[in-house]
Amino acid sequence: MIAVHLDGGNISIRKRKLPERPEGFAKIRLLLAGICNTDLELQRGYYGFRGTPGHEFVGMVEEADDPRWIGKRVVGEINLACDQCDWCGRGLGRHCPTRSVLGIVRHPGAFAEYLTLPERNLHALPAAISSEHAVFAEPLAAACEILDQVKVAANEPVAVLGDGKLGLLVAQVLHAHGAQVTHFGRHRAKLQISAKAGIATELAKAKLPERAFTLVVDATGSAAGLEQAIRMTVPRGNVIMKSTVHDRVTLDAAPVIVNEISLIGSRCGRFKPALALLKSAKVDVNPLIADRFGLRDAPEAFRRAAERGTLKVLLDAAQA
Amino acid sequence: MIAVHLDGGNISIRKRKLPERPEGFAKIRLLLAGICNTDLELQRGYYGFRGTPGHEFVGMVEEADDPRWIGKRVVGEINLACDQCDWCGRGLGRHCPTRSVLGIVRHPGAFAEYLTLPERNLHALPAAISSEHAVFAEPLAAACEILDQVKVAANEPVAVLGDGKLGLLVAQVLHAHGAQVTHFGRHRAKLQISAKAGIATELAKAKLPERAFTLVVDATGSAAGLEQAIRMTVPRGNVIMKSTVHDRVTLDAAPVIVNEISLIGSRCGRFKPALALLKSAKVDVNPLIADRFGLRDAPEAFRRAAERGTLKVLLDAAQA
Repeated sequence: MIAVHLDGGNISIRKRKLPERPEGFAKIRLLLAGICNTDLELQRGYYGFRGTPGHEFVGMVEEADDPRWIGKRVVGEINLACDQCDWCGRGLGRHCPTRSVLGIVRHPGAFAEYLTLPERNLHALPAAISSEHAVFAEPLAAACEILDQVKVAANEPVAVLGDGKLGLLVAQVLHAHGAQVTHFGRHRAKLQISAKAGIATELAKAKLPERAFTLVVDATGSAAGLEQAIRMTVPRGNVIMKSTVHDRVTLDAAPVIVNEISLIGSRCGRFKPALALLKSAKVDVNPLIADRFGLRDAPEAFRRAAERGTLKVLLDAAQA
Repeated sequence: MIAVHLDGGNISIRKRKLPERPEGFAKIRLLLAGICNTDLELQRGYYGFRGTPGHEFVGMVEEADDPRWIGKRVVGEINLACDQCDWCGRGLGRHCPTRSVLGIVRHPGAFAEYLTLPERNLHALPAAISSEHAVFAEPLAAACEILDQVKVAANEPVAVLGDGKLGLLVAQVLHAHGAQVTHFGRHRAKLQISAKAGIATELAKAKLPERAFTLVVDATGSAAGLEQAIRMTVPRGNVIMKSTVHDRVTLDAAPVIVNEISLIGSRCGRFKPALALLKSAKVDVNPLIADRFGLRDAPEAFRRAAERGTLKVLLDAAQA
């Protein structure tokens, strides 16, 4: 099979043996995959990653212990947890200390003709969810994670900062949940996606509303986003930290303490609520698709995805 | 009357007219007051403060609208709130946006022979609580605030970082609550106060336990304390930010996000649980008293309080 290979910032297409399927694992043929900012960071060499990246995917199960999986179109949760420890017992395998992570930590990723995942990680897709939509299940689950971490009331005034892929998904998820969302960003065209979904949008200027929102989600991807979010939050409010920032973040702790604000780190989420949103069409991911390449053209797809302002770039296993 | 006066870093004793008592306010004769780190910061000129500082006090009510207050020994909540806004309606006058704060923001403080406070801010002291203990009500309430912000289970593994006044109170409050507290500090003699209260203590060395506590309270007062606290917290755990730090704080956001940790700012608290702890003698504040001066000797008392390692310095209105 062919697989994308990253090595110290170099990206190439390699021929590989088909992956072995350990007990309890399914062997999955790739249909469609999405390039995430994390993949671009792996390519930039941030984590010393070497191997096959990719964790946003839709595939077809070809082999599995449980024959009911065979022939099913699936998405899969990306954390491979031990299923034995307390974290796993609490349904938080995403924090299992011995986990590996598809295409990120010690498990070959989805940018290949075939991948493997534990059967318990899989979710069968109903016909109502196209592969183009289902490939957003993982980032959409990360957006839904916020609702597992904090209670958000109907009509609660919420701000989302940043109009990249994750910010756009977060704004739609919170809007679908019934919050009164204002989406702040720097790109008119991207904010237009939220506006079309019925979300209030504002071009981020120098001066944003202060102490105005009970919940502010920082999805700016910039080190300055967190302090901006803190300024916009009412006392006792919550700031969700959704940005992966590689510079160290500097902030004035005084307003956090004086206003008793909670800064809440937020990462992966459960797929179930994400799939429900896709099925109900309460979230529209279509306008987030920027481009589509064959798996073989992954190097070009990565270049495209890294261009400033590009939203989701897909890798299509069927495309020549 | 005499009153302590701060002006741009200078401290002096001034003669002042007796304070006017507005409607709804009590006029209170000072008995005993405590010098807090905030007072030392006001003296260092951090907030451009000019006037009478002091917010930790015990006094005797001499005049009030409600005659039942007269002759009562009292402590008083330090935030003068409007009692009209939504915050006040929710019992959170501590976050009232138009509040003044005794001895800190637009209301003359307690380091004077007389002070005024709204009657609704007062708590009458039972005979069982000595003035020496009651003068700790305000910082003890700040320690109790943690329990109003996060649920702490019996035997929950909790770490307190920092063995200053606030760290010592926090350790005792969480221990009295039933948590399994380990108190980390740099001073053997101070940690001994916690050890005598039955709390596990550890001298803070270069390497502290990582991912070991579900709740970590940073009361170090140092900019490095927050990152240390983050390292010690399990995934999905809470870090309470109790330190007022004047340098900007720098941190690596990645472990906060990957481990979905909550960083929770924490400031003033309700007096009621603090007074209950003092009455039940579940918290022992005696060993925190480092020194005692007459009100007239406040400049010397401030110098003493600012000496490295000094715990609570009291100002006694009755002392010559």
